[in-house]
Amino acid sequence: MDPQLAQTLKFDSNGLIPAIVQDATTSEVLMMAWMNKEALDKTIQTGKTHFFSRSRNKLWLKGESSGHVQHVRSVALDCDADVLLIKVAQVGAACHDGYYSCFYREYKPNDEVKFKVVGRKVFDPETVYG
Amino acid sequence: MDPQLAQTLKFDSNGLIPAIVQDATTSEVLMMAWMNKEALDKTIQTGKTHFFSRSRNKLWLKGESSGHVQHVRSVALDCDADVLLIKVAQVGAACHDGYYSCFYREYKPNDEVKFKVVGRKVFDPETVYG
Repeated sequence: MDPQLAQTLKFDSNGLIPAIVQDATTSEVLMMAWMNKEALDKTIQTGKTHFFSRSRNKLWLKGESSGHVQHVRSVALDCDADVLLIKVAQVGAACHDGYYSCFYREYKPNDEVKFKVVGRKVFDPETVYG
Repeated sequence: MDPQLAQTLKFDSNGLIPAIVQDATTSEVLMMAWMNKEALDKTIQTGKTHFFSRSRNKLWLKGESSGHVQHVRSVALDCDADVLLIKVAQVGAACHDGYYSCFYREYKPNDEVKFKVVGRKVFDPETVYG
């Protein structure tokens, strides 16, 4: 990793940093996932987002199963250097549930249905993931 | 806390969940901070964002020193129910460094100055925080 980047960023005690992914065109927030140094390096080198899966304990290329990769347009860091904001061109959709953004449900405290689907569905997960 | 919300959200082993804050008008991502159940409850009840500070180990109202509060417009959750996206009307600016968004620096791997300031400065921190 670029030594200036490694010195600046603050990875947590597990060696991870949260990465917010935002659509570079529409500005929708698509997802948040975690990166370790290797994931960030691969993201910068390949121009496609890579993350570290805490549940599977391994690196993954976003879109490796679905083809829904994210082409990196810019990488920003916050004031504390402990969160990344990655702007991308999204192929297909970000969410494995078939929605364009993972944040497709809004909490409505006063409604009968408290989690209202507000996102747009782009694909059928059964078809894509089999 | 609303039992339906408490049952749905996945707080981590420290009882925290990351909350991404986005400007409801411009769609800029302003910051990311952590909430515990109490912070989320206060955010929903008061309509102003509250967070839990891991370094100070206490609840804080965003803007309690600066007056730069965030009025909540909507609360969304992601597919895994372990990240929140809060859309707000920002008073003043989100960043304590004086920028409108905390993500005011872009990483430029091929430039001489690798962290380029791209955000707009709104106030002088010396004046606001003394």
